[in-house]
Amino acid sequence: MIYLTRRERFSAAHRMFRQDWTDQENMEVFGKCSNPKWHGHNYELFVTVKGEIPESHGFVMNLTTLKEIILERVIEKLDHKNINLEVDFMQGKIATTENLAIAIWSELKPYIEKHGAILHCVRISETENNSIEYYGE
Amino acid sequence: MIYLTRRERFSAAHRMFRQDWTDQENMEVFGKCSNPKWHGHNYELFVTVKGEIPESHGFVMNLTTLKEIILERVIEKLDHKNINLEVDFMQGKIATTENLAIAIWSELKPYIEKHGAILHCVRISETENNSIEYYGE
Amino acid sequence: MIYLTRRERFSAAHRMFRQDWTDQENMEVFGKCSNPKWHGHNYELFVTVKGEIPESHGFVMNLTTLKEIILERVIEKLDHKNINLEVDFMQGKIATTENLAIAIWSELKPYIEKHGAILHCVRISETENNSIEYYGE
Amino acid sequence: MIYLTRRERFSAAHRMFRQDWTDQENMEVFGKCSNPKWHGHNYELFVTVKGEIPESHGFVMNLTTLKEIILERVIEKLDHKNINLEVDFMQGKIATTENLAIAIWSELKPYIEKHGAILHCVRISETENNSIEYYGE
Amino acid sequence: MIYLTRRERFSAAHRMFRQDWTDQENMEVFGKCSNPKWHGHNYELFVTVKGEIPESHGFVMNLTTLKEIILERVIEKLDHKNINLEVDFMQGKIATTENLAIAIWSELKPYIEKHGAILHCVRISETENNSIEYYGE
Amino acid sequence: MIYLTRRERFSAAHRMFRQDWTDQENMEVFGKCSNPKWHGHNYELFVTVKGEIPESHGFVMNLTTLKEIILERVIEKLDHKNINLEVDFMQGKIATTENLAIAIWSELKPYIEKHGAILHCVRISETENNSIEYYGE
Repeated sequence: MIYLTRRERFSAAHRMFRQDWTDQENMEVFGKCSNPKWHGHNYELFVTVKGEIPESHGFVMNLTTLKEIILERVIEKLDHKNINLEVDFMQGKIATTENLAIAIWSELKPYIEKHGAILHCVRISETENNSIEYYGE
Repeated sequence: MIYLTRRERFSAAHRMFRQDWTDQENMEVFGKCSNPKWHGHNYELFVTVKGEIPESHGFVMNLTTLKEIILERVIEKLDHKNINLEVDFMQGKIATTENLAIAIWSELKPYIEKHGAILHCVRISETENNSIEYYGE
Repeated sequence: MIYLTRRERFSAAHRMFRQDWTDQENMEVFGKCSNPKWHGHNYELFVTVKGEIPESHGFVMNLTTLKEIILERVIEKLDHKNINLEVDFMQGKIATTENLAIAIWSELKPYIEKHGAILHCVRISETENNSIEYYGE
Repeated sequence: MIYLTRRERFSAAHRMFRQDWTDQENMEVFGKCSNPKWHGHNYELFVTVKGEIPESHGFVMNLTTLKEIILERVIEKLDHKNINLEVDFMQGKIATTENLAIAIWSELKPYIEKHGAILHCVRISETENNSIEYYGE
Repeated sequence: MIYLTRRERFSAAHRMFRQDWTDQENMEVFGKCSNPKWHGHNYELFVTVKGEIPESHGFVMNLTTLKEIILERVIEKLDHKNINLEVDFMQGKIATTENLAIAIWSELKPYIEKHGAILHCVRISETENNSIEYYGE
Repeated sequence: MIYLTRRERFSAAHRMFRQDWTDQENMEVFGKCSNPKWHGHNYELFVTVKGEIPESHGFVMNLTTLKEIILERVIEKLDHKNINLEVDFMQGKIATTENLAIAIWSELKPYIEKHGAILHCVRISETENNSIEYYGE
């Protein structure tokens, strides 16, 4: 069993808030991250897959295939977008990095399995100081 | 003459566009950076000041003072904000990193001079691949 | 179960040595890290907590709370300090990064649990080439 | 149980291909990484060892010893070399980062055990976007 | 006058040597960088252009245009290639990073001027410790 | 004229203070950097030399020579040392990064000129947020 990690990046706007709370309630829980006029980040996404290494070619998964899955299923939907308003797989969810990691896990899992590898971890770095990891359970 | 550089960071939303252009005209010139629903970045700001080194204390400028000027005059106004809608010194300007660098230069210059140093350069890194430098002329 | 990592930094002086050994014995075991006149590092501290995500707000733990705990319990005691001479929770211990990681774990654990999360890992990077991880057992 | 990670670097040329395939078959599977005239990378190698911390000196393993083992057993054989043609422990293997990580694991394991620590992980970063981890099973 | 820097990356094999010298003479001057079986690097290329900022759009040069010029004129010719054997603009030159920077300058200059900006600097980082800058004179 | 930059690193303890001031006066000017029990940093040193490129070998200066000069003249004296107490070229000076950069300039200049290159810049990064540059005048 060996682990392969691919990094991709996206820049997006978001706001952490609940629609059924007042702006003040949101500010108390989410602080400046709840600014109603939005703010944004350069997110780094690290996707780790694992698997056996077939002797025929010696890699866990074709890196170009992994890259294309991440770009098509996740990055194209997030990059230069508003996470709250424009990303289908985040509708109805609070736009925390935690929820984003779980949603990206669900987006990627079937496509990675289709290529014979196992999705192991989705990590998102929101700033150089904050990051989230999700292992699917 | 010696040069001192201080880095500070801010996360903000923005959109590159002209109000007197249609969305389509904006898209043609600014591309995905013109998304009407905003996107955002983790900006890195590098402020370089220069000066002689007095023998009495051996530094160009007190680093804590420099940090406080940058935080108070620039970062507090930009961090977790919408550059187009909420930043006083960007009103009426297209929210490019170029214009942002020039505006930050004007914000910082008088306060740095008041402390006996010369503002040398404002550099802004928008992503790990793109950055802007301005030297005041 | 999801994992949240917060990075904070501190700059400190230290020396690796045992008081009951001669300088020469210390030099043989600890090398230049045992210099009696001290040396120092910019340490990076990565604290990882884990937990379920409540639907009410969508995050493992309030990031501001986590930051304040780390600053108050650890960083304020270490930053711009001498680890051997000035840090209460390192008294009587050899100032290795290993012992520092274990001591920081003990400092943080009760405060993180008080806020409903589980401390998962304390990682300390001493230089860009050396780092230590501790998982509590 | 505590974990110590040491980073070392090497720059090498390689080519991903199977000798029993035609150039075209290799190109279809390995893409531009199969260029018959070689290409190369700055590889980063992260070796993680684990163990108990003896009270006598307070570290998992002497860092200088760990560094020397990695340099002598791995880096000297790889740095400024052609991985396919010049590295004894890669002969007869496809020069993927996956196979490289497994081979480095085998090279390091006996020497790390000889010094009382347990080899935990070999991680190789091939570019800033791609990396491989191997845990020995 | 404002400065815009774009970073792009390429991975390539090379060897520093003169054909009219023996292997031993090459080894004496170029050391391990002269290995006849090649080695390689992940190069980072930073291209800085400068210019006035037109009020109409507020940027020195369209970043997408700059990116495309760098990719088409330089990166496509260097990435996953052998610098000595496969790169047209390096033929007949010693494959030092110095010569590479000067050659890239010549490749880029006319295309950047065609778009109304001035080429200011070509910087190449060969490893995290070594880099070269060229300003055209 | 082309520019070559070499990075080296050192970890050291220091304290910013004047012997003819009281601890309180020192604290007022230098803040926590004046802690009488020392603190320390991982310093990064970037040395830039410039020169013409001889056609015979195609580099500004032999990189191995440059590295050896920096190691022998500067790094060996600073690494794992106390800058105030143990570094000959810092005696009688306030241990600011500004003074350190100027002193390193004087240490390196004659040895670099002896090898036919011109010393252009000494840059020292004290933390990821603070750095100093000196150009010799």
